[in-house]
Amino acid sequence: MINEQYKAMLGGKSVIRQLSEYATARGGEIGYDNVFDFTLGNPSVPCSGRFTDEMLALYKESDPIALHGYSQSPGIRTVREKVAQSLNRRFSTGYGTEHIFMTSGAAGALAHALRCVTKPGDKVITFAPYFPEYIHYVGCTGAKLSIVEADKKTFEINFKALEKELTADTAAILVNTPNNPSGTVYCEETIKKLAAILNEKQREFGHDIFIISDEPYREIVFDGKQTPYISNFYDNTLSCYSFSKSLSLPGERIGYVAANPRCTDSDLIVPICTQISRGIGHNCPASSIQLGIAEVLDETNDLSVYETNMNLLYDALTDIGFECRRPGGTFYMFPKALEEDATAFCLKAKEYDLILVPSDSFGCEGHFRIAYCTDTEKVKRSLDVFRRFASEVYGM
Amino acid sequence: MINEQYKAMLGGKSVIRQLSEYATARGGEIGYDNVFDFTLGNPSVPCSGRFTDEMLALYKESDPIALHGYSQSPGIRTVREKVAQSLNRRFSTGYGTEHIFMTSGAAGALAHALRCVTKPGDKVITFAPYFPEYIHYVGCTGAKLSIVEADKKTFEINFKALEKELTADTAAILVNTPNNPSGTVYCEETIKKLAAILNEKQREFGHDIFIISDEPYREIVFDGKQTPYISNFYDNTLSCYSFSKSLSLPGERIGYVAANPRCTDSDLIVPICTQISRGIGHNCPASSIQLGIAEVLDETNDLSVYETNMNLLYDALTDIGFECRRPGGTFYMFPKALEEDATAFCLKAKEYDLILVPSDSFGCEGHFRIAYCTDTEKVKRSLDVFRRFASEVYGM
Repeated sequence: MINEQYKAMLGGKSVIRQLSEYATARGGEIGYDNVFDFTLGNPSVPCSGRFTDEMLALYKESDPIALHGYSQSPGIRTVREKVAQSLNRRFSTGYGTEHIFMTSGAAGALAHALRCVTKPGDKVITFAPYFPEYIHYVGCTGAKLSIVEADKKTFEINFKALEKELTADTAAILVNTPNNPSGTVYCEETIKKLAAILNEKQREFGHDIFIISDEPYREIVFDGKQTPYISNFYDNTLSCYSFSKSLSLPGERIGYVAANPRCTDSDLIVPICTQISRGIGHNCPASSIQLGIAEVLDETNDLSVYETNMNLLYDALTDIGFECRRPGGTFYMFPKALEEDATAFCLKAKEYDLILVPSDSFGCEGHFRIAYCTDTEKVKRSLDVFRRFASEVYGM
Repeated sequence: MINEQYKAMLGGKSVIRQLSEYATARGGEIGYDNVFDFTLGNPSVPCSGRFTDEMLALYKESDPIALHGYSQSPGIRTVREKVAQSLNRRFSTGYGTEHIFMTSGAAGALAHALRCVTKPGDKVITFAPYFPEYIHYVGCTGAKLSIVEADKKTFEINFKALEKELTADTAAILVNTPNNPSGTVYCEETIKKLAAILNEKQREFGHDIFIISDEPYREIVFDGKQTPYISNFYDNTLSCYSFSKSLSLPGERIGYVAANPRCTDSDLIVPICTQISRGIGHNCPASSIQLGIAEVLDETNDLSVYETNMNLLYDALTDIGFECRRPGGTFYMFPKALEEDATAFCLKAKEYDLILVPSDSFGCEGHFRIAYCTDTEKVKRSLDVFRRFASEVYGM
């Protein structure tokens, strides 16, 4: 018999995917150039030429049996070693090969990290606004996701609300900075305050509380800044990374879990992830892709287009009169809608072929998400449409 | 806190992997050429040149954003369409695109198929000898794996034992033909008899019993024969496939679930697999590999070396006096050990640098597995070692 739990999930199709499908269909009618599709976080920058060159060299020159052979369960050893070294170079961390577990993207990393440090019934806390898939990522482990409401002014952590949520059954905090959908990059002060609170609560409760840090946007930071590396501020941190955004390889499903060498049972995290893999049918990202990214670990694509797009949109929207926190990174921004009901607002924008995602599915009312990983030329053309829409519908 | 369930699994390292690691270490001491490592099912035939050519063309000629972009959750649509068409051509099936769900290998396929048609507490039946990972694949879904003891004469299904196991809580039967470790290819008569019994039990119990058919060795069949395609004999069949063996791509983690169009809720299987993916962090096999295999679906590598190796080993071992059912396919054989205790037998063989896997972890006593996916030249050299071993230790 078909599993009823999963059957019941069928109705809950992702709002983002539905809007994206609408945009594609609408593009078929009026030409995709005329649809301002700001729905999906699909990188618009091609992967770096060096990655392609490495892959071509692997296919041309290496032994196909080695290239396509089974990797060890936690990932290819030399790849894990290079990942550890790259992190150590860039963030002054102390990872060894034994702390790195290769995964199929951030989703795979989160699936392992969550199962590793929680058990069914435990509480996992995240902060609104949050990536809607977290509900399923956590829900399917049997743990319960609790949402700390947003600080709608700064989109940093709402500590007052956090302290209310932090009960003794809390096993993990799921953190996402740079943040999808707000574009906020938590400052060092925020991270230090979070670490201090969690350290205190660990002592009070007498058990570990892990930070599971979801970091696919780690390298997309504006104004020449860097994202503070959370694991450097809190020992019990599992960093979950994906090369989807920094190297524009979302379809290749490649990422990792990096366990802080000072976390509890740090030598067991990777072996336990390996056991988790056996049960969820994971068995490593593609071997050729592992070998390919291992050669370009310190690189990113040219990500400057995202900053260009952000500045264009931010300047124009605030000029129109939108309230918006300026993003510190990612390729998202999260302005306040021009009426309370974000869905109603986005439906009206849709009439102008501005396809925006209402904020409700991100756990925060009255806002909308713009994914500006798209051509700058199209962003420029959208600005007049935003102006016309705000003026005609909202008299701005 | 570290999850205790997974922590408890840490002791249970795979016997096969342990022996394989021993063989590698021993190879370091005496030269790998001198170690007759028959442990791992890692294909020894390189992937076909056509696959490599397709991949080179994709990397050279296609738009990197399309090549590496997110695929739809059930897999890239054109790839699924081609998989359906290839199956229909080869097995006279009636698959549509909507029945195909792309997965990261057979492990990914089984993880989805099992969760799709069972719920925690349900019984899943498999037949000894079986692939030891089944214990974890099933166990981590919350279902219970029940083993039907082997028919040690033919290694076809032991129907008498099956009828005893087939209780009303049975949700699925996990079938593996061509079989790892015995090399048996179930004949049509066996499959028809299984289908008749299951159809009767479905009526009696008033609920579905699915066959989950694990088919990575489907194309490795000897004597010019074909594996009967199980789904053609029983409607409620989910076929789980991997390109690991037929195209020698085990590290690339690519396979699929194909839902019989006549199975219960056949239009829901793929959408439900998509929901399952969200919870286990799966999110598709690598996009470039999907696109690559889609061009070589009707092909296999030159697999004849496995038949050559099988014949050499089968003839020599039976000549020595080993009892062995002649394999119909795969790259395994499963002779009877020369003493009751298979582990003791394999430890003695190890002294001759013959690295064999004892049968106990396959749920069947007194046998051993030879994985002969290795150089024919090495297989030839091993025959004298087998002779010397059997003569010196067992006086044969």
